[in-house]
Amino acid sequence: MKIGFIGLGSMGQPMARSLLQAGHELTVYNRTPQVAEPLRQQGATVAQSPAEAAQDVEVLITMLANDTAVEAVLFGANVAAGALNALAKDAIHLSMSTISVSLSKRLAETHATAGQGYLAAPVFGRSEVAAQAALWIVAAGEAENVERCRPLFEAMGQGVFHVGTEAWMANLVKLTGNFMIAAVLETMGEAFALMQKSGVAPEQFLEIVNTALFKSPLYQNYGSLIVQERYEPAGFKLHLGLKDVQLVLSAAESMAVPLPLASLIRDHFLTAIAQGQGEIDWAGLAQVAAENAGLNQKNRKA
Amino acid sequence: MKIGFIGLGSMGQPMARSLLQAGHELTVYNRTPQVAEPLRQQGATVAQSPAEAAQDVEVLITMLANDTAVEAVLFGANVAAGALNALAKDAIHLSMSTISVSLSKRLAETHATAGQGYLAAPVFGRSEVAAQAALWIVAAGEAENVERCRPLFEAMGQGVFHVGTEAWMANLVKLTGNFMIAAVLETMGEAFALMQKSGVAPEQFLEIVNTALFKSPLYQNYGSLIVQERYEPAGFKLHLGLKDVQLVLSAAESMAVPLPLASLIRDHFLTAIAQGQGEIDWAGLAQVAAENAGLNQKNRKA
Amino acid sequence: MKIGFIGLGSMGQPMARSLLQAGHELTVYNRTPQVAEPLRQQGATVAQSPAEAAQDVEVLITMLANDTAVEAVLFGANVAAGALNALAKDAIHLSMSTISVSLSKRLAETHATAGQGYLAAPVFGRSEVAAQAALWIVAAGEAENVERCRPLFEAMGQGVFHVGTEAWMANLVKLTGNFMIAAVLETMGEAFALMQKSGVAPEQFLEIVNTALFKSPLYQNYGSLIVQERYEPAGFKLHLGLKDVQLVLSAAESMAVPLPLASLIRDHFLTAIAQGQGEIDWAGLAQVAAENAGLNQKNRKA
Amino acid sequence: MKIGFIGLGSMGQPMARSLLQAGHELTVYNRTPQVAEPLRQQGATVAQSPAEAAQDVEVLITMLANDTAVEAVLFGANVAAGALNALAKDAIHLSMSTISVSLSKRLAETHATAGQGYLAAPVFGRSEVAAQAALWIVAAGEAENVERCRPLFEAMGQGVFHVGTEAWMANLVKLTGNFMIAAVLETMGEAFALMQKSGVAPEQFLEIVNTALFKSPLYQNYGSLIVQERYEPAGFKLHLGLKDVQLVLSAAESMAVPLPLASLIRDHFLTAIAQGQGEIDWAGLAQVAAENAGLNQKNRKA
Repeated sequence: MKIGFIGLGSMGQPMARSLLQAGHELTVYNRTPQVAEPLRQQGATVAQSPAEAAQDVEVLITMLANDTAVEAVLFGANVAAGALNALAKDAIHLSMSTISVSLSKRLAETHATAGQGYLAAPVFGRSEVAAQAALWIVAAGEAENVERCRPLFEAMGQGVFHVGTEAWMANLVKLTGNFMIAAVLETMGEAFALMQKSGVAPEQFLEIVNTALFKSPLYQNYGSLIVQERYEPAGFKLHLGLKDVQLVLSAAESMAVPLPLASLIRDHFLTAIAQGQGEIDWAGLAQVAAENAGLNQKNRKA
Repeated sequence: MKIGFIGLGSMGQPMARSLLQAGHELTVYNRTPQVAEPLRQQGATVAQSPAEAAQDVEVLITMLANDTAVEAVLFGANVAAGALNALAKDAIHLSMSTISVSLSKRLAETHATAGQGYLAAPVFGRSEVAAQAALWIVAAGEAENVERCRPLFEAMGQGVFHVGTEAWMANLVKLTGNFMIAAVLETMGEAFALMQKSGVAPEQFLEIVNTALFKSPLYQNYGSLIVQERYEPAGFKLHLGLKDVQLVLSAAESMAVPLPLASLIRDHFLTAIAQGQGEIDWAGLAQVAAENAGLNQKNRKA
Repeated sequence: MKIGFIGLGSMGQPMARSLLQAGHELTVYNRTPQVAEPLRQQGATVAQSPAEAAQDVEVLITMLANDTAVEAVLFGANVAAGALNALAKDAIHLSMSTISVSLSKRLAETHATAGQGYLAAPVFGRSEVAAQAALWIVAAGEAENVERCRPLFEAMGQGVFHVGTEAWMANLVKLTGNFMIAAVLETMGEAFALMQKSGVAPEQFLEIVNTALFKSPLYQNYGSLIVQERYEPAGFKLHLGLKDVQLVLSAAESMAVPLPLASLIRDHFLTAIAQGQGEIDWAGLAQVAAENAGLNQKNRKA
Repeated sequence: MKIGFIGLGSMGQPMARSLLQAGHELTVYNRTPQVAEPLRQQGATVAQSPAEAAQDVEVLITMLANDTAVEAVLFGANVAAGALNALAKDAIHLSMSTISVSLSKRLAETHATAGQGYLAAPVFGRSEVAAQAALWIVAAGEAENVERCRPLFEAMGQGVFHVGTEAWMANLVKLTGNFMIAAVLETMGEAFALMQKSGVAPEQFLEIVNTALFKSPLYQNYGSLIVQERYEPAGFKLHLGLKDVQLVLSAAESMAVPLPLASLIRDHFLTAIAQGQGEIDWAGLAQVAAENAGLNQKNRKA
């Protein structure tokens, strides 16, 4: 298939490579163009603007950092320069970024008005998972469009879930999944602070609960980061964790769904940021519980 | 070994059987004596009082519902009638019940004064796990006593963790593990309420997050209960969940460790109880989030 | 002074009348024009558009329901039709509505670019207080502009506080004041639920704490509403209470200030709304605590 | 009347003096006897034990720090030495201390069994208010006993409220009043942190909200302490504030009444204590909100 791909960050880069390797024809765009060079060598065409990447493609994929970046490439400084305007009627915008429910709703309307297809298909998995084409993809939008994009999903991931016909549903699922991870971080932060202050070794406690109860690699991985206070380099920055929790709170608010645990987590993320910890890994949320218990964290920034 | 075993409930019964099958000599006691009959047929001696069960044994195991029950069998209506008084010097009281940190501290002092050994060794696993002798055992107390009891742990469980020399540490680990499960219930309650109100099928959401993120049988099992609103018969009653969260809050308070997530869970358990749901499974905590989102629960008691 | 006045709701109407009575020359505008009739009879000129109300005035006052309404009158369907464009250079926009900190910042920039003055001056007091020209006014912006508007403040209020040179500071003070009232409502909701369930008469409890502790007419007034469950007609609707708490949370978030009590209140307002209570008085927040305690509220909508 | 008075702390001392001045005959007892000297000079008899203070009196007043102290004087090291045993049948124990609901229930049973009367009558007001005989007294118990004690209430206070026939109701009212004050402290802590970080002067903010909204001397007094970070000497120590909030949570729990705001306050008190601030005034609760916002408190102990 003829594909445009905008956004070659740590996730977009390996995803685009997977598509090339599966034999698709790619035109790629990134704000800082040197990032595109390896893909050019593997056969991709490099576009000079979002609009150019959107021209004459069947599917335009966007994989960007946040709402602002998505709005910038689609709508451009002026409408004519944006990708939206360049995208053909009947082409599909496949939005794989983690964006807000409200932007996803707005995109659905805008593309519908323009006679274009629109799918939201955010992913679970970090860059090394993307490099193995082993992402889990959560797609929403019209079933027919999901089918048209299936070869692309198969090239990038190990599985795709179709969660509904409204595209924003996929965004909500992704954000809620991230909230559930953050809930694990908060839980561990409190539990480990209690262990540390009581004299039980947190690493042994982690081993016990994951052996006897959770049996979850996610608990193992995040638990180890917290036990070792290894928050740098950040796999996923704390301020991005805050952003996602805010987006889920905001979506839930619009449906009158209170999420008191998400509120609590949001407040603790804010405390971490107020104390200068926004750039560390979001597992560093656990520091807040430790500080509140009067424990000093060895890696804490002054 | 010559063992006394007090408390033949849904956990104690299969644990005692495992000990018999491993060739140990058992004297058992239960408040309602008919429960002891199957064990008698398998070779156990049935005692008429806690004191009788404690007489002439190397190890006295207690596996009871709560602090009150443990105090009743140990201290008796009058001291002479209690098991404590009947237990030989140098014998070990192996307390496997889920009890409070403060009672465990008091038992440690009392047994030390009496020249008796004391271990706390609560377990993770429900009755069917106990029946397979596959419990995980968390032990604390003097290492020498743990070694003396190792054959018993091996008869009842698939593994034992020694978490410290202070017996109460094991009780704290057990309670904190239960807090972590309750945190999963709260998280799911909020996430599923959001899914339900937004139109995403909760069962599909559960499949997605457990496939892509948690990969945890515990998430699968509790998630299924909540998705299906299958809260009866209760595997573990909601009011017992409240009790354990209260015990962890109380222990944490004595060490000046705030646990805001445990406080939130406690408040939601109280709401469930105020609304008549104390006897359902503790997974029913999820109902509170659903109610708060204006959703009606089909199994809700009026 | 020559004044434009946009927004003749329950607050704007008596405020405009106070200005007329103090001898100022008024051109008024309201979306539904019949509301302007009484003011016309008292000497006001009635404008046909926001732009017309802004023409040739020294000060343009806006007193509107929310951000959206303020944006609509200032920026219009097209820019030319909005009040902003019609306002003279050196004239002052005196924004008295309860709006967000972010809109207030945007207005400051926009007016500065246009060479116009801008003050935020939200008020404390309900319509009956406005009718007595006894409002408390919280003003922020350049001191010189505050001085120019002082005769207007004196005509409408019993006092003015100048809280800073950045206009948004006044909006933040107003919103934070409303958060503090909401905190009283939450506190009373919990306290009265406890009294009711324990058998202490809530009205006597209110009398005791207000006599012995608070001695505050605000506690008396809101306390009486809650004790009597008199939530209709609404003095200030619950969904507007939610809006203000959201605005304070949003402003605080941008400064990395966690407000856990505001988060808790927000979640309880959401529950009330999810359960169909958005149109009752915001004192009805207390119903959430009563419901959570298993108490039935007599006025509760099904 | 012939009165025994046990507990001559900062509250008990002036209360006992008021009774002497009203012409009552007093036998006083305090653990550290030198405190009783001024009262002896004013005509009181000084007892050598709690039992001696309880002998031959119509009413025995206790005004002690907490449950433990009350239990110690009533039940003694051995029962014979305690005040309970020495108190005549038909005499009244008038318990004015701030104690738990559960101890108050236990006292009611114990005195009933002994054929003695029992009233709980905790007070609102600090020592300077007690010195002016201007306390507010909250009494509960049988109406007849309240009448018998009325001359004493009139000697010590400016008013008495009879809240119910169950004595513990008065204890609950007192504790809930203290919770409501703590809620003001939490509210101010959050609001002032937001003001400070935004650049609005907290003292001006306090002036505004108390002038325009609350009009409450309590807001004025506590607000000033927080604005000036004047937490020493402590009028009421932070760890005592925690104790009272715990007692109200515990009483509410026994009635299945969740108090999420009280839970939040409890957690913040614990944080303050974990960080070494237990001995400062409870208004120092506000420090937690400031710390969480990344603000440094000038008086903070390292």
